[in-house]
Amino acid sequence: MGTICGHSIDEYIGMIRDFHGHLAPGLLIGGFMVDLATKNMPAGEFYDVLCETATCLPDAVQILTPCTYGNGWLKVVNVGRFAVAFFEKYTGAGVRVHLDAMKLDEYPEIRNWFLKLKTKQEQDKDRLIHEILTAESRILGMSPVQIVEELIGKIKGGKIFLCPGCGEAYPVKDGDRCLACQGTHLYR
Amino acid sequence: MGTICGHSIDEYIGMIRDFHGHLAPGLLIGGFMVDLATKNMPAGEFYDVLCETATCLPDAVQILTPCTYGNGWLKVVNVGRFAVAFFEKYTGAGVRVHLDAMKLDEYPEIRNWFLKLKTKQEQDKDRLIHEILTAESRILGMSPVQIVEELIGKIKGGKIFLCPGCGEAYPVKDGDRCLACQGTHLYR
Repeated sequence: MGTICGHSIDEYIGMIRDFHGHLAPGLLIGGFMVDLATKNMPAGEFYDVLCETATCLPDAVQILTPCTYGNGWLKVVNVGRFAVAFFEKYTGAGVRVHLDAMKLDEYPEIRNWFLKLKTKQEQDKDRLIHEILTAESRILGMSPVQIVEELIGKIKGGKIFLCPGCGEAYPVKDGDRCLACQGTHLYR
Repeated sequence: MGTICGHSIDEYIGMIRDFHGHLAPGLLIGGFMVDLATKNMPAGEFYDVLCETATCLPDAVQILTPCTYGNGWLKVVNVGRFAVAFFEKYTGAGVRVHLDAMKLDEYPEIRNWFLKLKTKQEQDKDRLIHEILTAESRILGMSPVQIVEELIGKIKGGKIFLCPGCGEAYPVKDGDRCLACQGTHLYR
């Protein structure tokens, strides 16, 4: 059986349980995605990661790479696709890996899960995990990408002001008051 | 010296380095914020977390609680305030903790860092860390909150279609094609 970023499958499953709380199928597939992407990045380069969904996949990146949501090396733009791009942090050149719905003919339970053809209760979880471990990277697609300029590098915060609305510190680039006081409702 | 969610300060600093990569001041303050919030939640209840910034603070939550970005128990709405809310996952009732700029008179280096009054090069990192460890939760504010309905519970994905643009699976709630094909540009 293969490895995921140098970890045995059992080790990685333990890491999933520790961090994510339970063995989510998306985390297991995500492990093979991260493994494939990193193997196709030039060695020794610093990379950042873009994740196209907020569900599961960001945790595979956070478990297996130095890139976390809070350190800014993992960015999430939730366009709802199960895909991740690894790119050189200064040039934006990299690879994108996605779960390919066209490659699921031999893996019916992965298809049922991925396309939500069955409810969670109807799914055969053991078979699903077995299919994922059998498929490894065979259900993935990969292509070279060039990240758009706006997503390369740190997002600079700029100057900090105290908001005249709530009195709290906020980045002045957001306007003459903080976004919460401008109408992003968080609390009743 | 105090503890952070049951960990010694040195243990927590080790956990920061392991996950986040370096000892960021925001992670250290974030530890005291998470500690204060959890101490003020009713014991035994399941809570979710809302983070009001994407910088540093989400990692303090991910290191110290079961809530991660990928499992959906941590949500980030980036309104640029250094604040975090812990709330009961079904009712939305909880507490919000923020770094209070009004409480920094005795901690000049924290103020310089927080309000960006000095560049990173000009900051005295050792003094900053010392001030944070001295201040503990004295620089924080806390208030009860009720989270808005839209941020309570799992965000349900609904039906999955294949996008006529890119051919990839996407949540049909996003429209007749995926958000990337609708114009959210990720790649050149």
